[in-house]
Amino acid sequence: MLASLIALDRTDGEGLSRQLFMQIRRLIERGRLKPGSRLPASRQLADDLGVGRNTVLLAYEQLGLEGYLDADGRRGTRVSEASRGFRGSHHGVAEDAGAIPSPHLSQTALRLMGVPRREETRSMTFLPGMPEVRQFPHDVWARLMRRAARQVASREALLGYAHYTGLPMLKEAILEHVALARGVVADMDQVMILSSAQAAQDLVARMLLDAGDVALHEEPGYAGMTAALAGVCAKTLPIRIDAAAPYLGLAGEESGAEIPRLIYSSPSHQFPTGRVMALDERLALLRYAQERDCFILEDDYDSEFHFSGAPLSSLQGLDRRGLVIYMGTFSKALNPGLRVAYLIVPKRLVEAAGRCLRNVGSVPSVTVQWALRDFLREGHFRSHVLRMNRLYRQRRDCLVEQLRAQASDWLLPVVPDGGIQLPAYFCGKAVGLDDRALLGAMQEAGMEGSALSSLYWSGRTETRHGLLLGFAASDEVAIRRGVGQLASLLCKMAP
Amino acid sequence: MLASLIALDRTDGEGLSRQLFMQIRRLIERGRLKPGSRLPASRQLADDLGVGRNTVLLAYEQLGLEGYLDADGRRGTRVSEASRGFRGSHHGVAEDAGAIPSPHLSQTALRLMGVPRREETRSMTFLPGMPEVRQFPHDVWARLMRRAARQVASREALLGYAHYTGLPMLKEAILEHVALARGVVADMDQVMILSSAQAAQDLVARMLLDAGDVALHEEPGYAGMTAALAGVCAKTLPIRIDAAAPYLGLAGEESGAEIPRLIYSSPSHQFPTGRVMALDERLALLRYAQERDCFILEDDYDSEFHFSGAPLSSLQGLDRRGLVIYMGTFSKALNPGLRVAYLIVPKRLVEAAGRCLRNVGSVPSVTVQWALRDFLREGHFRSHVLRMNRLYRQRRDCLVEQLRAQASDWLLPVVPDGGIQLPAYFCGKAVGLDDRALLGAMQEAGMEGSALSSLYWSGRTETRHGLLLGFAASDEVAIRRGVGQLASLLCKMAP
Repeated sequence: MLASLIALDRTDGEGLSRQLFMQIRRLIERGRLKPGSRLPASRQLADDLGVGRNTVLLAYEQLGLEGYLDADGRRGTRVSEASRGFRGSHHGVAEDAGAIPSPHLSQTALRLMGVPRREETRSMTFLPGMPEVRQFPHDVWARLMRRAARQVASREALLGYAHYTGLPMLKEAILEHVALARGVVADMDQVMILSSAQAAQDLVARMLLDAGDVALHEEPGYAGMTAALAGVCAKTLPIRIDAAAPYLGLAGEESGAEIPRLIYSSPSHQFPTGRVMALDERLALLRYAQERDCFILEDDYDSEFHFSGAPLSSLQGLDRRGLVIYMGTFSKALNPGLRVAYLIVPKRLVEAAGRCLRNVGSVPSVTVQWALRDFLREGHFRSHVLRMNRLYRQRRDCLVEQLRAQASDWLLPVVPDGGIQLPAYFCGKAVGLDDRALLGAMQEAGMEGSALSSLYWSGRTETRHGLLLGFAASDEVAIRRGVGQLASLLCKMAP
Repeated sequence: MLASLIALDRTDGEGLSRQLFMQIRRLIERGRLKPGSRLPASRQLADDLGVGRNTVLLAYEQLGLEGYLDADGRRGTRVSEASRGFRGSHHGVAEDAGAIPSPHLSQTALRLMGVPRREETRSMTFLPGMPEVRQFPHDVWARLMRRAARQVASREALLGYAHYTGLPMLKEAILEHVALARGVVADMDQVMILSSAQAAQDLVARMLLDAGDVALHEEPGYAGMTAALAGVCAKTLPIRIDAAAPYLGLAGEESGAEIPRLIYSSPSHQFPTGRVMALDERLALLRYAQERDCFILEDDYDSEFHFSGAPLSSLQGLDRRGLVIYMGTFSKALNPGLRVAYLIVPKRLVEAAGRCLRNVGSVPSVTVQWALRDFLREGHFRSHVLRMNRLYRQRRDCLVEQLRAQASDWLLPVVPDGGIQLPAYFCGKAVGLDDRALLGAMQEAGMEGSALSSLYWSGRTETRHGLLLGFAASDEVAIRRGVGQLASLLCKMAP
């Protein structure tokens, strides 16, 4: 009797007829109800289950629609012939996870999985790349978001699929900002707005590189770019940042077949060393790229923050040949939760970048773009950055002072002139220590950081060990306490 | 005299010292100021220009920092030796656009550029894939966005780089929705939240396919998927939707080397034909995929809307073998401006999809995700969809009625049981007409639509001409007027 196989839960939010549908369906799928067998009349089953007849009728109707039941003329309803298919291999056997083969993945997936990235973390102490989000003007932002959501309401076209490279009004505001602050020279059509710098790097790599094409990447260098290049199976060669004036020696390392198609560079504040590229190197890099007609991806990730004088202008502003693709993000200047970054591509790449971006679909919400435009235009961006600049300078000073006072037996900090993090190289007693082991111990103690050695990605460069320490998201109390804990760990691991 | 080469604009928002810096820099770059030549003392230049001495000092300092000027002991400041680099090919010659070579693009870029996609448009009349965004509850959404922006303010970890596959709370709300409405069976870790369905398709293609790998795609079929497969240089073979029961014949078309790794399918409401896949076909598709261990991407793009009874459950709910990747979006049910879509991947793909998504970086804003969770949880989603369902049914009826009344000499509409668009095939006098020509004329007259023939992507399938017409974003007045205009165009083009 069918009713004995059914158990309805009257407290369940799911409707009774939906439950009944799902349970009969499962009985058919598992072969408990065989093809051709007749179901009780709806009135009968309703009585047996103590539910309204409509509940049963709705369930039968849906089962009929989905092909599980066939009407059988006046004689009622039968389990369908089509459901015989459940007796095949797919549903007939037990759901044995062991029998499910591991998936065949693409080279892209396998390579991406091979690039070490930070696991999710909740500690902000020394977290590199993390700004002080607690002091972001959340109330202002909340107000602008509400206003933006209302203002876009009457703009049907904006809410559709138009503007897949970003809202023109935000592009305009970004251009004003980067022209003034970074010396970037471009028109609006050259701006592409994306969900993240990671998406931007990925787009550039995919647009310019086929599998096996040569790319140059800084070593030590940003893992996000290492991943983007791995994702297109590029042949990636190192620019050895620990060498003197690494960008002057590019041509020397090249062999015939290895002319690059793309060079990644963070000239204003090299990640992770903080090194600033001098003018002669910038010009040499541009000339090198021009002679080989290869593009340069300029990552200008945190140059909003600078502690003495203005920052150096962008490489893009020196380019007259359409070689430089400029990349910026709001993750450092504002907060990473916004998920807005941008590319400014040379004129000759506008069409390709736009078409590729459309097909990659990494576009931020229209409301967020609108609110961000207002945030820039109404001066909130500038005043927040100014305020954070002062704060980060204090925190940098505090971190350097604490490292010198408490950890100078092991760590030699490099004092950056801007940005939100600094490298501290192993020295003295720490020489020979594995920075990944130290980082593991720090994470257990509730801190963060990056092991500098993990940013050497080629396996063919002499590796310097040390830590990359963020100072922007940790207040002075946290910095003092953190350095104290770090010093005791070092004391244990390298006494 | 230097001052005669400088023209400062005192009304410009850009500071005077910034203008001075940029102008001297340009003089050096263009060779008007030669390496080694001495600049006037700051006081002198300030007098000549009628500005404060500090203005000049700041400009000189920045020029020094950027390597354009060298201090020359007590004798002042000279143009640097490093600036000799500007005389090289990069800056020395005129900025002649003609001399800039066209860029070398990857196969990915070239193939993506070859897939025809809709150009940006402002007309909503008959625009396929477009919901009625004017009736979206913008005020509710604005309030939820403001609240969300405030609530995330105290959650530092959320605003960082954590949760790169989406906020757990939104994943939970999505799972509740799709379990109930679509019969999807999954755990939270299987949900991946992305910026768009386009990004989701792209991720799946990249994760599973190498260049040359075989994929099956519906024909006629969704251009977004055509692009995603083109982007990984897959060998794409057609599932001929115009055939009877196309999914029963999959194995028959296959030759030895062409075992697919991925099958794209829109079983609940095939794009663009609106065809619903019957149970026997669903089971055959699952069995086919299981025997070859290939994945199925189930695109469930608009099944929130159904006009008689409940919609068929998802294919994912029938899968016991980890074969089906389910894809949903909020673009149709709510509005495309949100830019939120999701994948629900089999357990065995969770790690790969998460790692790939992290490295692709196509993630929506944290605030938008939070607000969307509230929108789902507080019942706004359900009541909006119910309301739109009634509205879209009326609009479908109106469009069908108008087409039958005014355009039956040329167009045969297929009446869909749900969704937001319908195909209307050429018949009678329109046989032999090119649907792209008709679409061009419609666009000139301020309408939209898709030419069905442009959704035949293989070049090897007999093409049916006709229009895909959206009815959700056009009110009854617009529909009546639009069909009238369409009929007069047809009358001219195929009298």
